[in-house]
Amino acid sequence: MNRRGFMAAMGAATLAAAAQPWAAEAPQLRIQERQAGKVTPGHYRIGALVFDDYETLDLQGPVEMLGHVADVEIQLIGLGSVARSFQGPRVVVDRPLEQLEPLDLFLVPGGLGTRSLVQQPQLIELIRRQALMSERVLSVCTGAALLAKAGLLDGKRATTNKAAFSWVASLAPEADWQGRARWVQDGNLTSSSGVSAGTDAALALIAELRGEAVARQIAEIAEYPWNPDPDNDPFAITWGTAS
Amino acid sequence: MNRRGFMAAMGAATLAAAAQPWAAEAPQLRIQERQAGKVTPGHYRIGALVFDDYETLDLQGPVEMLGHVADVEIQLIGLGSVARSFQGPRVVVDRPLEQLEPLDLFLVPGGLGTRSLVQQPQLIELIRRQALMSERVLSVCTGAALLAKAGLLDGKRATTNKAAFSWVASLAPEADWQGRARWVQDGNLTSSSGVSAGTDAALALIAELRGEAVARQIAEIAEYPWNPDPDNDPFAITWGTAS
Repeated sequence: MNRRGFMAAMGAATLAAAAQPWAAEAPQLRIQERQAGKVTPGHYRIGALVFDDYETLDLQGPVEMLGHVADVEIQLIGLGSVARSFQGPRVVVDRPLEQLEPLDLFLVPGGLGTRSLVQQPQLIELIRRQALMSERVLSVCTGAALLAKAGLLDGKRATTNKAAFSWVASLAPEADWQGRARWVQDGNLTSSSGVSAGTDAALALIAELRGEAVARQIAEIAEYPWNPDPDNDPFAITWGTAS
Repeated sequence: MNRRGFMAAMGAATLAAAAQPWAAEAPQLRIQERQAGKVTPGHYRIGALVFDDYETLDLQGPVEMLGHVADVEIQLIGLGSVARSFQGPRVVVDRPLEQLEPLDLFLVPGGLGTRSLVQQPQLIELIRRQALMSERVLSVCTGAALLAKAGLLDGKRATTNKAAFSWVASLAPEADWQGRARWVQDGNLTSSSGVSAGTDAALALIAELRGEAVARQIAEIAEYPWNPDPDNDPFAITWGTAS
């Protein structure tokens, strides 16, 4: 489907949202669904973007932690039937990106593959629309490059992978880039620093959604030494992005 | 193929190794392959076991780190065509477990699915044989339960997930279980504690194979605060397994 056909297929409410990226008044479709009784109480729907050369832990760290929360469903959203990680192993795509659906959380990992994705306007448009149909968005690492290219970070505080910082920042000069942050939350957008920082950000999200005790319990089950402080970012010094 | 048919199909050298689990003189098939010029120099072949209800990070943490090492190939070994993680997302199986192959490293993750696997003798036998055809074995979390059931931990120092410690230990009373260890190395066997401990153990393995500078560089790329000390195990206290 070309972009025009795609847009024609979208409903008016979504088009209105698309016209005003990330506005506070953007329709929270997932909330509307919940109010309309279409969502099982307590059921939290997560969609995670996958693509060739995604970075394994960008995706799987948050999946590990979020997947331990009761009533959470995680689906992988992609282009073909499978996506190959940078590290080699492949994941199965659960639904095509073209088939946009309201989500509680849209997880956007990064990786080498983002370098190609930012040059594909139709894909970036789909990512933008899926983000706008999601109550919250969590980018990990250079996943922020996809949101930046989609114009979703303009005027927002955000961070990204420290080793690729200048490249990602160049895609959204209007964003308020934080060179020293394990992750940054601004409204319904959380952006994390590189790779493993996404795991800490996911636990912070769990703490917000279900309480800190639940997040701590999940970290303990995973024997994971959670860094719960978004300002504790030793890698800003390693990579020279501390301001 | 039943067990008898399977054993008949195996070569004599492998049968000899199978008769003496993990003996120092067990044929190191991968080394033999390398000496015979069958392996590309520098090429390091990793096979990771996958099964339904494997724990995501048990697998994907080590895959993240090991997949950054030059000349490493990682394949997922399983039963069907896909394996579903405990968290939901599925991975693609690259080769069937029945098709045993020499490996440089056999990675054995854990997860809820191990509870069912230990009750399937033919599967445990295949895992035992794949382990014996591998130069090294790394178990993560309750992946140790599979090695324990296969008799591969008898007389070995080993550790496992702290929350499931007594269950796993009961499967190999002859192993020397370490209740306080982020990971344990004994000969060609490395066993890690729960879930995220596997990531630290994988980096330790990289340090041994390619030098500590390479391991540190990979941890920095992943913005991962590597715990390089196998004796630094805060979760032994959390879960009450410290002796």
